Amino acid sequence: MKNRIRNKSLRDKIISADEAAAIIKSGMTIGCSGFTPSGYPKAVPLALVEKAQGEDFNINILTGASVGSELDGALAEAGLINRRYPYQSDKNLRSSINSGDVKYSDIHLSHFPQNIRYGHYGDIDLAIVEAIAITEEGWIVPSSSVGAAPTFLKEAEKIIVELNLKQTLDLEGVHDIYQLADPPEREAISLVQADQRIGSPYIKIDPKKIEGIVITEIEDEISFAAYQDDISNKIASHIIDFLEAEQQAGKLPKELLPLQSGVGAVANAVLSGLCNSNFENIKFYSEVIQDAVLELIDCGKIDIASGTSITLSESGKKQFKENIDLYKDKIILRPQEISNNPEIIRRLGSIAINTAIEADIYGNVNSTHIMGSRMMNGIGGSGDFARNAYLSIFVTSSVAKGGKISSIVPMVSHVDHTEHDVDIIVTEQGLADLRGLSPQERAVEIITKAVSPLYKDKLLDYFERAKNRGGHTPVKLNEALSWHQRYIDTGTMK
Amino acid sequence: MKNRIRNKSLRDKIISADEAAAIIKSGMTIGCSGFTPSGYPKAVPLALVEKAQGEDFNINILTGASVGSELDGALAEAGLINRRYPYQSDKNLRSSINSGDVKYSDIHLSHFPQNIRYGHYGDIDLAIVEAIAITEEGWIVPSSSVGAAPTFLKEAEKIIVELNLKQTLDLEGVHDIYQLADPPEREAISLVQADQRIGSPYIKIDPKKIEGIVITEIEDEISFAAYQDDISNKIASHIIDFLEAEQQAGKLPKELLPLQSGVGAVANAVLSGLCNSNFENIKFYSEVIQDAVLELIDCGKIDIASGTSITLSESGKKQFKENIDLYKDKIILRPQEISNNPEIIRRLGSIAINTAIEADIYGNVNSTHIMGSRMMNGIGGSGDFARNAYLSIFVTSSVAKGGKISSIVPMVSHVDHTEHDVDIIVTEQGLADLRGLSPQERAVEIITKAVSPLYKDKLLDYFERAKNRGGHTPVKLNEALSWHQRYIDTGTMK
Repeated sequence: MKNRIRNKSLRDKIISADEAAAIIKSGMTIGCSGFTPSGYPKAVPLALVEKAQGEDFNINILTGASVGSELDGALAEAGLINRRYPYQSDKNLRSSINSGDVKYSDIHLSHFPQNIRYGHYGDIDLAIVEAIAITEEGWIVPSSSVGAAPTFLKEAEKIIVELNLKQTLDLEGVHDIYQLADPPEREAISLVQADQRIGSPYIKIDPKKIEGIVITEIEDEISFAAYQDDISNKIASHIIDFLEAEQQAGKLPKELLPLQSGVGAVANAVLSGLCNSNFENIKFYSEVIQDAVLELIDCGKIDIASGTSITLSESGKKQFKENIDLYKDKIILRPQEISNNPEIIRRLGSIAINTAIEADIYGNVNSTHIMGSRMMNGIGGSGDFARNAYLSIFVTSSVAKGGKISSIVPMVSHVDHTEHDVDIIVTEQGLADLRGLSPQERAVEIITKAVSPLYKDKLLDYFERAKNRGGHTPVKLNEALSWHQRYIDTGTMK
Repeated sequence: MKNRIRNKSLRDKIISADEAAAIIKSGMTIGCSGFTPSGYPKAVPLALVEKAQGEDFNINILTGASVGSELDGALAEAGLINRRYPYQSDKNLRSSINSGDVKYSDIHLSHFPQNIRYGHYGDIDLAIVEAIAITEEGWIVPSSSVGAAPTFLKEAEKIIVELNLKQTLDLEGVHDIYQLADPPEREAISLVQADQRIGSPYIKIDPKKIEGIVITEIEDEISFAAYQDDISNKIASHIIDFLEAEQQAGKLPKELLPLQSGVGAVANAVLSGLCNSNFENIKFYSEVIQDAVLELIDCGKIDIASGTSITLSESGKKQFKENIDLYKDKIILRPQEISNNPEIIRRLGSIAINTAIEADIYGNVNSTHIMGSRMMNGIGGSGDFARNAYLSIFVTSSVAKGGKISSIVPMVSHVDHTEHDVDIIVTEQGLADLRGLSPQERAVEIITKAVSPLYKDKLLDYFERAKNRGGHTPVKLNEALSWHQRYIDTGTMK
């Protein structure tokens, strides 16, 4: 414990998870560490559920991004969440959000920490933060994610630390904590290269705010495997071909520009594919460091992986632990306000690869809502990157539900990214390059390149009839959303 | 002329507008100065129309933002425009865009210069730029706007200068030209205060590229008056009351945060209203410096007005000329890539006030398309500011066409700004504060505060029925756009 809690007097603050849960009162607003389920508190939320279940008790939960089922899932199932910000991906919570039981807002992840400081979500009563150690000064060494923890720790009245002994102390030194002042005192962020460190490896806090330290050995949930499939491999190969062509045309350097990629199969496939590409000394400036990033380090293709969380599969975790010295040199974890900051993303000129639920023929993208109404996860950081990237790429399989849903539709049922922020749309069918095109040219490009043969004629027919109505962006208002309605009524868009 | 063309050898380059027009070949891509009709070339386009009218001739026109009828209007009417970027507000051009004769894309104004350099619009054959003088070194002193002129001058193969003798030489020194390098060489922009100068008063160019200098005395078109009406005064008073309440709550300093405002009646009314407010030492960091900004300087309320163009009414122009020494000290004109830069806007923490065509009950905003299809002007800089502001405010009259159109609808017919980027919606009915609210709470706030009594019950009824369908953001897909369709079919949304 000497290594883990280096400030002697703080060792007296060790309490049980139940004692910590007793600190939590109904009505509190609580900021929890955690980002894309990594480095979130687990012991205290589970104890809270034990304590409060069945009572007239609810709290507002703020996190960095999605967290595991011990927090979002258990609390939602027990009906203990009133408000929730800014992103989630838990099935219980999703269902409480869609039933209206939880008041949820999904927020651009770079905006969220400053919104907290601006007071949009009221006062923060408590921060619960997972750490690997507490320094001599009483400062926090975060675990496998940073997220919004620095802001919660600064703004909260009280702090509970979950000291997780299963999170390796070797992570110390990986973090780079730089905190922004707010307008009118904000300065330029000095980061101009993805591999630059501009802050401190610790989150500086006022140790007097620590109410308790809970020792835990519960590991982060593994929420996904490093899978790839035929569809994602095809999408990845379209993207890599495109990037190679851009490089040959002199539009991209041999080392590319800093890569951002969402989480999941396509991202894994693209990153894996880069191992066999001609690119070298690639830089990764993104949110989540997943398995394929380790693979890219292993094959010697990337120089640096900057993110706000490390989120690995079971085998990825093993690989990471066994070669930690190799990886540690090449990984930097930053607050999400820096990893996702528009200033940085635009300056670096990111190549951003994000996932769409659906896109429309004019290039608008829906990242969040199923059939217009039902929240899936949230916008997350996709808008931070898409708006500010050098290249904004969205990927999706051309169909869903075995062909019953076309992912390219006349009009998206919810807009998260407008035509203004979408350069490229890729499905397994092909890559539509929208740069410089007018809306009607975009429609032709998307329908020709990216739509499934199952829906191509149908979309062309819609587009031609819409054009007869005229206008810069021809829309048949009484038909634009009829594909979704047909799916709801009949079970297929066909 | 010695004062106007200080480089002796360049005086030999003086040519007539007809001679300049002869340089322009069909198929060329031409970058023109001009921003929200101010400081755009006039003589050469008018000569071009004379020359090319009726011929099989077309060109691609790029500008900073909207330009006057001598350029957009005359060329569109003569059918000479193939492609047009990134913003316009001319009635002839609008009609050619909506008929599909002109291929138009509206682009975030801060993105546009870098997109040019990235090659999205192909090579720039020619730059035509209005200037008040050419320096000894052969550098350009722009006139009443900067816009994208620095990028056009840098990227174009050849340059034609329209030296406008009616634009006062007193403007010299007002400009601050700072040009960004592109990734991976881009540095942090050092501007941290609205009144800071970070560049040069001249646009440095290679004088060898100048093909001709056309002397002209055609004045910028006056496209709008500094009018205010009852509706805009009511909207303005809601905004000022809100800002005062925020200041009293300790959320805003006495000097506010840097203001951005769109052009027109509401903007004029808000700015005028600030003369009678308690705020002091206000800073204005925006795109267009219009009449009310002069008024704010006159009443001693603002310290600095930073923009990319000065666009005044007839009386504003007179006032400006007569008191130029007073105004000159307080005005800075920057390239649109700086005036609208996300890095700066977010750092300064702007209060952004922009105009919506319509908004929906969840807070999505349409700034561009009438009934989903017909382009009005374009997104302009609204997205640059709305996404990155400290406070993103959208204003609109609650009804249009004498009550036949509700500006708040179940679903906007086109999305330019998503719910994620809209903090406040204001109509003459009231102010809806959406910060921190879930979609369903936003709907209640908007319907209660901002909707016309003519449509309030109807919208509430829609919302209640949509809620029965369930989901986080309840939408009735077969009804969401029916208000627009009804307007098209019957002439009213009622």
